Amino acid sequence: MSVAAGREFLAIPGPTVMPDAVLQAMQRPAIDIYAGPAVALTDGLLRDLSTIFGTAGKTYIYAANGHGAWEAALTNVLSRGDKVLVLESGRFAIGWGDAAKMLGAEVEVLPGDFRRAVRPEAVEARLRKDAKGEIKALLVAQIDTASGVVNDIEAIGAAVRAAGHDALLMVDTVASLGCVPFAMDAWGVDVAMAGSQKGLMTPPGLGFTAAGPRARAAHKKAGMRTPYWDWTFRDGEVHYHKYCGTPPEHLLFGLRAALDMILAEGLENVFARHRLLAEATRRAVDVWSEGQAIAFNISEPDERCDTVTAVVTTGGESAQPLVDYCAQKCGVVLGRALGKSEGRGFRIAHMGHVNAPMILGTLGVVEMGLAALGIPHGKNGAAAAVEYLAKAVPA
Amino acid sequence: MSVAAGREFLAIPGPTVMPDAVLQAMQRPAIDIYAGPAVALTDGLLRDLSTIFGTAGKTYIYAANGHGAWEAALTNVLSRGDKVLVLESGRFAIGWGDAAKMLGAEVEVLPGDFRRAVRPEAVEARLRKDAKGEIKALLVAQIDTASGVVNDIEAIGAAVRAAGHDALLMVDTVASLGCVPFAMDAWGVDVAMAGSQKGLMTPPGLGFTAAGPRARAAHKKAGMRTPYWDWTFRDGEVHYHKYCGTPPEHLLFGLRAALDMILAEGLENVFARHRLLAEATRRAVDVWSEGQAIAFNISEPDERCDTVTAVVTTGGESAQPLVDYCAQKCGVVLGRALGKSEGRGFRIAHMGHVNAPMILGTLGVVEMGLAALGIPHGKNGAAAAVEYLAKAVPA
Repeated sequence: MSVAAGREFLAIPGPTVMPDAVLQAMQRPAIDIYAGPAVALTDGLLRDLSTIFGTAGKTYIYAANGHGAWEAALTNVLSRGDKVLVLESGRFAIGWGDAAKMLGAEVEVLPGDFRRAVRPEAVEARLRKDAKGEIKALLVAQIDTASGVVNDIEAIGAAVRAAGHDALLMVDTVASLGCVPFAMDAWGVDVAMAGSQKGLMTPPGLGFTAAGPRARAAHKKAGMRTPYWDWTFRDGEVHYHKYCGTPPEHLLFGLRAALDMILAEGLENVFARHRLLAEATRRAVDVWSEGQAIAFNISEPDERCDTVTAVVTTGGESAQPLVDYCAQKCGVVLGRALGKSEGRGFRIAHMGHVNAPMILGTLGVVEMGLAALGIPHGKNGAAAAVEYLAKAVPA
Repeated sequence: MSVAAGREFLAIPGPTVMPDAVLQAMQRPAIDIYAGPAVALTDGLLRDLSTIFGTAGKTYIYAANGHGAWEAALTNVLSRGDKVLVLESGRFAIGWGDAAKMLGAEVEVLPGDFRRAVRPEAVEARLRKDAKGEIKALLVAQIDTASGVVNDIEAIGAAVRAAGHDALLMVDTVASLGCVPFAMDAWGVDVAMAGSQKGLMTPPGLGFTAAGPRARAAHKKAGMRTPYWDWTFRDGEVHYHKYCGTPPEHLLFGLRAALDMILAEGLENVFARHRLLAEATRRAVDVWSEGQAIAFNISEPDERCDTVTAVVTTGGESAQPLVDYCAQKCGVVLGRALGKSEGRGFRIAHMGHVNAPMILGTLGVVEMGLAALGIPHGKNGAAAAVEYLAKAVPA
C-alpha cells in the first residue's frame, strides 16, 4: 500500500518549495543584458535585498551557490595569513572556516557543542584575550540547518563590542534570511551572505553578500580579492559589471517574483508565519519525544530555530527506515541528518513557501511512520500541533 | 508606424533564444540534492558535456557565469607568479588575461588585430623564443563575439607542439561550443571552458570547465586553487560535492533539455545549420557592403565565425540609430558593438536555437533599417541570403 501519489512535499531545508509564481516568472525569453528592463530589474533586486538584510550598505548578487557566496564574503575582506575565528555551533560555520583556510587564512575554532548555540560570553572572553587584535574576522551561521540551532547574532554583536574588539562580524544567513529577523546594521554585522534557495524561495544558483562600512574599509586592503567575487568591480554603473559578466537572468526573474511575494505578505508576517509553523512542529516533536526513542537535536528550547527542526534517535539507531517510509509510502521527503548526527536522525524543514496544511500534513506523515515502524513515541503529536495552531491563529 | 509587436527576436550573441522545451523543463519543483534523480541527472550532463567538448577528460559544472568559469579554469592549474601568454584576437582573451593578472599571474599579450584571427605562426615563434619555458599557459578564445573572429584552435595546438613547448593550451569556447566543431583532445587543448547561455541554449548561470591529462598534472601543484572552483573537491562521489554545495537544479533541468535537443539533432547537423545560417548572413552583409558605409569587422572571409557577424561603420559613424530602429520599429534586438568598435557597429548573432525564418527575418529587418535611415548599402542583401540558402538546402 502507498499513499504517495499526489504533490510531493520536499521537506528538506533547501532547496525549498518553489512558488508557482516564481517558476512561472522564469518562463520567458532572455532579455538584453546591457540595457533596458534588465537594468531596472537589478536595481530593484539590490534595493530589496538590502532591505531584507537590514542594511543601508550595498548588496551583491552572484551567479553562484551559497558556498560561492562564502568565498565571495571571505575574499573581499581578508588577506592570506589573517586570523579568523570560527564560532562552532553545527556544521556550516566550520565549513566556511575550512574555505577560509584553503584561501590562506589562519583559522581558529571556538569550540561549540553540536546540540547548543554559540555562547556570546565565550566569544567575548576569547576576544578579550586577543589583546594584539590578531583576529580579523568572526564567522558564524545565524541558523545551522545541520544542528537546527539559531544563534543570537544580536548578542554576539554586542559581545564583540563589549570586548572592544575590531574583528569583522561575518554572518551566514543562508538558512535564515527572509524567515527570521535579521538586522545587519543594528546588530553590528559587517558582512552577511545568503543564497536564493531557502527562505527566498528561488531556485538554487544565486548567492548574495552584503557589506557594511567596516567591511568596505577592510575590502580596500584585502589581499584575497579575485575578479569574479570582487565588490569594487561590481560597484560601477555598467550593468554587465554588476554580475561580472552575463547576469543569470531567469533566476533573477524568479527572485523578483519571490521578493514581491515576501514584501506583499510583509516581512513581519513572514517571520510570524515561520515562528508559528516551527512551534507547531516543536509541539509535535515534544509529544513524540515522550517515547524516549527520538529527541530534539538542540537541547535548549530557546536555541531551536524557526526554519528547520533536527531530530535525533536517542540510541544512535538509523532513522533511514523512517525517512524511506515517509518518502516512498507518503510522498514527503524529509531531510537526512547531517554533521555529528549523520545517519541517526532526520530533519523537518519549515522554511520559505510553507503553510499550515504542508506542515500539519508532514507532521501527520512522520507520526504515521513512527507508528508503522513501531518506533516508540508519545501519541497525538500532530494533534498537539493542530491544537497549538488553532489557539495561535484565532478566527 | 511600427511592426514590432509579435515575438521579439533577441539577436544578441548570448543569452540566446531559449527553446520552449528548455524553459518548460525548469517549470518543476526542486528535488532532493543528496540522492535520487539528481545524481543521475548530474552523471548524464557531465558525460554529454565531455562528448560536446570532445574529451575523454572530466568536465565540471559550476553555478557561475562565463567569467566565473574563467576563474575556475585559471585557479585550477596556475600558481601566482606563473607567466601566461594571452593570444589577442578581440576582447575576451584580453579579459581572461586581466582576470589572470588579478589572480597573481604575470600576463604577456601576444598582440593581435581586432579585425584578424590569431596567427598560429606568431604563436609558434613566440614560444620558440621562450627557451626557459617560462610561459605556463596560453589563453585564447575560439570565437570572440566582440570581433566576430574564429581562431583556428587546431592550428594553434599544432603550433604549440611544433615549438616543442610545454605550456597548457587553455581555450574559451563560450561562444562556440555546440555551434562549431571543437575537439579538445584531438587538438591538444588542455583546459576548455564555456557557459550555458549561448550555443547550449540554456539560461545564463552555469559555467563549465573541462580538464585534460596535462591540466590534471598541473592542477596537483597549482597554488591558486580555491574551495569553490577546485576540481579535486568536486571529483569525489558525493553528489553535493560535485557542485561544491547546492546544485543549481532548475538550470540543470534546462540544460538537460537543451543537450537532448542538440544530441537529437546530431552535433554534425547542428554545426552544419550554424554554418549555413552564418553564410547566409555573410551573403547579405557582403551585398550591403557595396554601399561602402558598412563592412565586416573581420577583414579575412575565412576568419569570420559561424555564431555572430560583427559589422562596423566604415566612417566611424554610430550604428545606434540602426540598432534602435530594428528594436523599436521591428522587434529585433541586435548586439551592440563591443571592444575596439564600440559605438560604431552592430552584431547579428546566429547562435543556438536559430533557424531560417529567424535569420532571414532579421536580415530583412536590418535591410529595412538601412533603407529607412538612408544608410548607403547594396540592395537585395536579404534576397542574396535567400538565394544562397535555397541552393544550400535542396528540396
